[in-house]
Amino acid sequence: MSYELYYWDGIQGRGEFVRLALEDADAAYIDVTREPSRGLNEMLGLLSDPSEGQLTFAPPFLKDETVIVSHVANILLYLGPKLGLAPKEEALRWYANGLQLTITDLVAEVHDTHHPIAVSKYYEEQKTEAKARSFEFWNNRMPKFLAYFERVVQQNPADSGYLVGSKSTYVDLSMFQIIEGLKYAFPKAMNDYERRYPLLARLQNAIKGRPKLAAYLASPRRLAFNQEGIFRHYPELDMAA
Amino acid sequence: MSYELYYWDGIQGRGEFVRLALEDADAAYIDVTREPSRGLNEMLGLLSDPSEGQLTFAPPFLKDETVIVSHVANILLYLGPKLGLAPKEEALRWYANGLQLTITDLVAEVHDTHHPIAVSKYYEEQKTEAKARSFEFWNNRMPKFLAYFERVVQQNPADSGYLVGSKSTYVDLSMFQIIEGLKYAFPKAMNDYERRYPLLARLQNAIKGRPKLAAYLASPRRLAFNQEGIFRHYPELDMAA
Repeated sequence: MSYELYYWDGIQGRGEFVRLALEDADAAYIDVTREPSRGLNEMLGLLSDPSEGQLTFAPPFLKDETVIVSHVANILLYLGPKLGLAPKEEALRWYANGLQLTITDLVAEVHDTHHPIAVSKYYEEQKTEAKARSFEFWNNRMPKFLAYFERVVQQNPADSGYLVGSKSTYVDLSMFQIIEGLKYAFPKAMNDYERRYPLLARLQNAIKGRPKLAAYLASPRRLAFNQEGIFRHYPELDMAA
Repeated sequence: MSYELYYWDGIQGRGEFVRLALEDADAAYIDVTREPSRGLNEMLGLLSDPSEGQLTFAPPFLKDETVIVSHVANILLYLGPKLGLAPKEEALRWYANGLQLTITDLVAEVHDTHHPIAVSKYYEEQKTEAKARSFEFWNNRMPKFLAYFERVVQQNPADSGYLVGSKSTYVDLSMFQIIEGLKYAFPKAMNDYERRYPLLARLQNAIKGRPKLAAYLASPRRLAFNQEGIFRHYPELDMAA
């Protein structure tokens, strides 16, 4: 049976990290809210079902027969071995999950650059604070995260060019998405990032060239970045030229 | 050999979620930075070691012989079965990890109530924004999270009074810490929470009464909440009387 992915339609958002793994592995899956015969109401129904014994706080979540898995890192930890995208050694699986959770934290910080005060309010209502938070982000936080991941590739004992172990894993796919998103949201702050983070840039190119992933990225299933997702391009939040 | 927990000394912080599990299970562990013969430099050395093949972005992390596990949810996922604090059924372990990751998100939001703009700056430099974010927090976010966890207990098919399955797990211990922290940080917003979230209040009391945990809470190893941790009590950030 196909995996069933539940996430908001119309944005890449957090669901995209799961899609990249499913697509790269050519796995059979249903993107429930984008499926004409299914749709948003089915997801909302599951979230509020008073008879459901396994409640999810927020999308994305994955159904695999009777198993329901929520949160991106949890879903990827679950799918990784099944899709051939996890390290073989158990110690490295714990390490991979730690790396994925660091990516999770980075994603949350990216989100808060445009919503530093209230997720219930529009960006335009917190623009001043968003500028201050964005300055902090690309001045301190983004370099700290990216320098960390650069070191992770550099100090990988397998010297594979990937983040963990000798082969590519779901963490590399998520790293690809992070770099794509940051380049979209903060083109000026990310300008010349290849020079500062050469190993991440090389990783990025390697991932982008994977046949299944490349086919997905060129397909209509890959939505464009837009102003509703996690990564948004507001020029006033980017570094000055 | 004892587990080795690496975390900042002087605060409960994120490390406390791990300590509660270790203490409740009466596990042998070393709190490295609080150990006179070890200390902070050892942790900082590990974080920056250029020959380390498994890099951690930030504390807490746990060493178990050669395995290094970072991030609270990952550490608890690793320790849970070893400490007898995880559900037995595999499907429920994925569910428990999803719940723990929701707690992780809540903890990050609590932190941002006093640091909405820049983690590199003092609270006093972002006080106005902290007030706005705190208002959003206890007005919208906190009730949303707590109502969710209340439903999780209520809809638990095992009807055990715990969050997942028929016995208490590490997720219940983390929930206890969340409630303690919120009561400390936002006593007015949390006033009468027992009436609104009776199942969480009952869970809280059940956890508090566990002998090993109670002994820990009464020991000097349990540091008091303070103004350096995640949960801080700034009266001006709490709900008005």
